[in-house]
Amino acid sequence: MTKSGHPDGPNESRAQTEALETLTVNRRRLLAGTVGMVGALMMRSVARSEEAAMPVVPDDPTRVPGAAPTAYGQRSPFEQAVRVPRSWWASLTPLQDSQGMLTPSALHFERHHNGVPVIHPTRHRLMIHGLVERPWSFTLDDLKRFPSVSRLAFIECSGNSAIEWRAPTGKTVQQTHGLTSTSEWTGVALKTLLGELGVKPEASWVLAEGSDAAAMTRSLPLASLMEEALICYAQNGEPLRPEQGYPLRLLVPGWEGNTCIKWLRRLKLGTAPFMTREETSQYTDLMPDGTARQFTMVMEAKSVITSPSGGQRVQPGWIEINGLAWSGRGRIAQVEVSTDGGRSWQEAVLQDPVLPKCHTRFRLPWRWNGTDVILQSRCRDETGYRQPTRAELVSVRGVNSIYHYNAIQSWRIAADGQVTNVHA
Amino acid sequence: MTKSGHPDGPNESRAQTEALETLTVNRRRLLAGTVGMVGALMMRSVARSEEAAMPVVPDDPTRVPGAAPTAYGQRSPFEQAVRVPRSWWASLTPLQDSQGMLTPSALHFERHHNGVPVIHPTRHRLMIHGLVERPWSFTLDDLKRFPSVSRLAFIECSGNSAIEWRAPTGKTVQQTHGLTSTSEWTGVALKTLLGELGVKPEASWVLAEGSDAAAMTRSLPLASLMEEALICYAQNGEPLRPEQGYPLRLLVPGWEGNTCIKWLRRLKLGTAPFMTREETSQYTDLMPDGTARQFTMVMEAKSVITSPSGGQRVQPGWIEINGLAWSGRGRIAQVEVSTDGGRSWQEAVLQDPVLPKCHTRFRLPWRWNGTDVILQSRCRDETGYRQPTRAELVSVRGVNSIYHYNAIQSWRIAADGQVTNVHA
Repeated sequence: MTKSGHPDGPNESRAQTEALETLTVNRRRLLAGTVGMVGALMMRSVARSEEAAMPVVPDDPTRVPGAAPTAYGQRSPFEQAVRVPRSWWASLTPLQDSQGMLTPSALHFERHHNGVPVIHPTRHRLMIHGLVERPWSFTLDDLKRFPSVSRLAFIECSGNSAIEWRAPTGKTVQQTHGLTSTSEWTGVALKTLLGELGVKPEASWVLAEGSDAAAMTRSLPLASLMEEALICYAQNGEPLRPEQGYPLRLLVPGWEGNTCIKWLRRLKLGTAPFMTREETSQYTDLMPDGTARQFTMVMEAKSVITSPSGGQRVQPGWIEINGLAWSGRGRIAQVEVSTDGGRSWQEAVLQDPVLPKCHTRFRLPWRWNGTDVILQSRCRDETGYRQPTRAELVSVRGVNSIYHYNAIQSWRIAADGQVTNVHA
Repeated sequence: MTKSGHPDGPNESRAQTEALETLTVNRRRLLAGTVGMVGALMMRSVARSEEAAMPVVPDDPTRVPGAAPTAYGQRSPFEQAVRVPRSWWASLTPLQDSQGMLTPSALHFERHHNGVPVIHPTRHRLMIHGLVERPWSFTLDDLKRFPSVSRLAFIECSGNSAIEWRAPTGKTVQQTHGLTSTSEWTGVALKTLLGELGVKPEASWVLAEGSDAAAMTRSLPLASLMEEALICYAQNGEPLRPEQGYPLRLLVPGWEGNTCIKWLRRLKLGTAPFMTREETSQYTDLMPDGTARQFTMVMEAKSVITSPSGGQRVQPGWIEINGLAWSGRGRIAQVEVSTDGGRSWQEAVLQDPVLPKCHTRFRLPWRWNGTDVILQSRCRDETGYRQPTRAELVSVRGVNSIYHYNAIQSWRIAADGQVTNVHA
């Protein structure tokens, strides 16, 4: 990668121009004010977070005493990555700006069925009833006294990439794939709680209900929940964020996001699915023959190149192709990248640790020669399942579906370096 | 764990009292306003983050449409965990509130030598010079074009637990151990950059310099940096936080935090240590014989029980003892917990994944019988090194040191359930 990794003309001169502009602004402000003012302005703008006015930047930061520690930090006001709303009920994670495998809680995608409720943590209860020996209503304090478990896991909305079923509609990877995020979740294993309450032998399904204004409900098979399901109260080392279900969320690692009921208030054990609206009219897969697949909860293996991706512009020379791969069935075993529209494939490097049911960052250094090309990634999980091409997926599922689109994504780089979403 | 895991009188009644208080407030507000107002008030207070007034809590959240998605999320206004300032130059992570292995960036401890500078990302440069074939000044964009690496790693200030050398001064685990945090860091391997520039054969030490108002500088052995050192631009999936070195930080996994130079602007390769203030008058270990150990950079294995911990109050019955263990030399191999002041030890469960040079969460369910006891944890890392008792540490190091205190921590639980810091 010699030379080409070095600064190239365009970059360098752009940086210098911006530097000069900032310098001019500074000199003007500093004439009007004092050095102390710099710190003051900065503090205020940092406190106001993303809506902040840009702080005054000293010509030489080593000449200006910096700001004091803060109680609860904010990101730099120069950083503006945001979740973009897909509608009043969802917002998407800016995957084009993502690094590593974690999603900052502040940028974790959102999907609400009637908005984010205000719930007081000490007033909240989790009721577990139905086919249990000892029905019980738990406070948050009760749940925190049980043995806890932490695990890293992605949550993906089954509607992620839905807009790609018929046409390459999404302009950016945030629009095509932004309904998936990875966090570290902490809570109590559901099997621990049910062990306390005693499950009646005939119990086989569980109704999970949220305390949002949709009273979001799903039916889930008890046997699967006993394996890995967690009642979570923490995310990324602190309490759940409100939009992620504060104070309690059901986590079913690898299953479609809507099964991870947020603001969880009730679990009822029964002998059959409860056939709620969200598993009859919603969250079913309409097949070509007009039948609908129900309870297709596992999110199958999927990958996408996040850089370079739609809306970005690249320059000839060495760049790093990188992206994310994940599978609801376990670990990612392999990711391959094609730079010629799928004719040839190269194995990408997977970033350790490769964890089950987590985003896995893959990377491949690549030298772009300035010609028109199509970039693709495809993954295989530890069960041997391989991410399908769009043709393979459509041949089975048709194009009437909304959910579970996991086909290979194609990004076209035109000769001018502009990256766009195409169906290749 | 039967029964005792269930709600106990005190908890339940406290929750009910708080619930009633909130209800009263609600009814009053709701008489004066409308349901729409609830959402509005909530939105405003969430936006104002931790300084927020408490939002109005609806009696039944399922009856009130919730808030819309937001661009960049905030935590619940009911959550108030904060970094506490140790002085104008440091703040501590609230480990007593920590969950899992990750530290939220907003709560990552801070240690500044002259505050947090304001740095414009496009104006910032990293200069690498001295004994290299091709000295170079890199922009942030340049660095992002190189192959990237992500890794989870703790950073611990070598002054963490310093106040414990002479007396059990810290009242809480935040005060005794709050200068350590774990994040996922992403950037360029230093060896990749130096491979581009060409290292002259005689080079053996590196001067790393920050662009804060202290121009914080340390000398680091080149050979060690070539193994794992990263030039980081991202933390926990988004750009570095300002207090963590935005836009660039040197990460030397496992080494004392001050070597991970923040706001990194310069690396100079030389043939010997540069003997800066931070390695002569500061960050040396004063031994009993009056000599000072220099360049003791590795943070040795250490563990601490974070719950129950100083300042907390526990109730008789089953509780989970949990805490964190970490080692600058690799993975944690074992954590043992004593509930009788070190006479007997039980092995704790380590939470997967156990990663090298990362916080590792350990857990042990325990039934407290209401008598006066002393809780301790001790860890062993994969090199076989075992965390010393206080007596063992002091017998070698004396009590004149400030840095690298990693002795076993003792928490006393009195018969009334109050937890305090003791030297046992």
